[in-house]
Amino acid sequence: MRTYLDCIPCFFEQALKAARLAGADENVQKRILDSLAAEVPDFPLSSSPPEMGRIVYRLVREITGEEDPFKRIKDEYNKMALNLYPDLKEKVAHSKDRLLAAIRLALAGNVIDFGADKPFDLEREIKDAFKRDFAVFDYQEFKEILEDTKQILYLADNAGEVVFDRILIQELNREVIYVVRDKPVINDALIEDAKFCGIDKIARVISNGSDAPGTILSLCSKEFLGLYETAELIISKGQGNFEGLAGEDNTPIFFLFKVKCPVIGNDIGCQIGDIILKYNRK
Amino acid sequence: MRTYLDCIPCFFEQALKAARLAGADENVQKRILDSLAAEVPDFPLSSSPPEMGRIVYRLVREITGEEDPFKRIKDEYNKMALNLYPDLKEKVAHSKDRLLAAIRLALAGNVIDFGADKPFDLEREIKDAFKRDFAVFDYQEFKEILEDTKQILYLADNAGEVVFDRILIQELNREVIYVVRDKPVINDALIEDAKFCGIDKIARVISNGSDAPGTILSLCSKEFLGLYETAELIISKGQGNFEGLAGEDNTPIFFLFKVKCPVIGNDIGCQIGDIILKYNRK
Repeated sequence: MRTYLDCIPCFFEQALKAARLAGADENVQKRILDSLAAEVPDFPLSSSPPEMGRIVYRLVREITGEEDPFKRIKDEYNKMALNLYPDLKEKVAHSKDRLLAAIRLALAGNVIDFGADKPFDLEREIKDAFKRDFAVFDYQEFKEILEDTKQILYLADNAGEVVFDRILIQELNREVIYVVRDKPVINDALIEDAKFCGIDKIARVISNGSDAPGTILSLCSKEFLGLYETAELIISKGQGNFEGLAGEDNTPIFFLFKVKCPVIGNDIGCQIGDIILKYNRK
Repeated sequence: MRTYLDCIPCFFEQALKAARLAGADENVQKRILDSLAAEVPDFPLSSSPPEMGRIVYRLVREITGEEDPFKRIKDEYNKMALNLYPDLKEKVAHSKDRLLAAIRLALAGNVIDFGADKPFDLEREIKDAFKRDFAVFDYQEFKEILEDTKQILYLADNAGEVVFDRILIQELNREVIYVVRDKPVINDALIEDAKFCGIDKIARVISNGSDAPGTILSLCSKEFLGLYETAELIISKGQGNFEGLAGEDNTPIFFLFKVKCPVIGNDIGCQIGDIILKYNRK
């Protein structure tokens, strides 16, 4: 997905939030915003938002010297989600359609996003997970392709959310390669988060080689690209991966995310809060 | 009031909104944001937000060539408010404390603000005008100073809102000088708006000589400054005038506004939506 001009104020908001989390004082925060301002004129709108997101969070890392401002938050949500794990398993166990229940919970977990503008309520999200209608619901296609699939490439989004992905991966009942970011960016999951949340027990965990808050193919490692190009089925979690991969159709991708940003909502004709299971080839 | 870093993303949002209203295409919109980005590093945070607001709206005017992007909106709200005028008068007439009722309505009218981030509902605001508690309520002081005052300097805020000010001016029952902006900026009232809304029948209308969306003394005309420095009582409507004059205490000022921005809310210890009648010398 291209970048819209509405993303520009949001980049400044994100930079400020991350700078504060990194413990920067006001002068350093201002320096970060000034450096971002210097990047804006050179940023082509044809690039996707996570490409600029990468620059934003790099600036924060470089100027504050704080490698991982969201570390504490990620740890907190990993633990919180792990505590919820038995209840989530229970919910799936009591569902008529276990796969769909796990998809719904994976979507509930997608609310744990510190890049998005809005505050969130995880408990409420889980409660509401079974009440919502899907705004895009390519479930039939998903089940059909899954049927013929041996190995799934699962593109992770955020720490904490990983536990919800674990529930879904168990219901997929296939070999899964779980792909996380290579370096800290917002609260996106890294290999350590995947391991902490126990994904390594049920899937092979790799990094995509990049520090963008989304899957930007031109920035990914050869290892990841090899897997991506030959994948039978890709599950792409979250807005950032969607922003990076929207428009790609060489491989079958199912985008699984909650709409948390008005710009993405406008781009796909959905509303904030909508839940999406979208097949890229439909 | 100083500028906070949170104002910076908001300046970009405002620039984009004004550029769109001015009919700029996406390339021109981007050029405006790029030009604003070039200003950010040089803007001292010790300046007040309307000083940067002035630069924002100047950029939009200069780059689009559109002198008054909010003209249509101002006309619309002037007419809408004039239609409400008889009902507003009726509400005051049926109130036990007519002055307070007029103050409450003047606050309701302050919601007509296209610089603020939030959409608004004028009808609802009028309905709720008598239900709200004041977060700051220096009414006693106001009445005492008013008692000894012959001439009031009334600093206007937005078009449309002027009709609500007219109601209050009638209840003040004093000689009033009504001060508007000199050039178009956001939907702030100009002399033509004051006249259209009938203020010229009950007050002397002047411009403050500046195109900032707030009263910035260093940018105001000598005529205005002469009146300001010797004023017996100043009523300052809206956030922009508060941002410019907060901290000034040479003359008695009552700030009358609705909190529509979290940064101002934090600065004065109030919440979004709060209504304020604040004496500067208390």
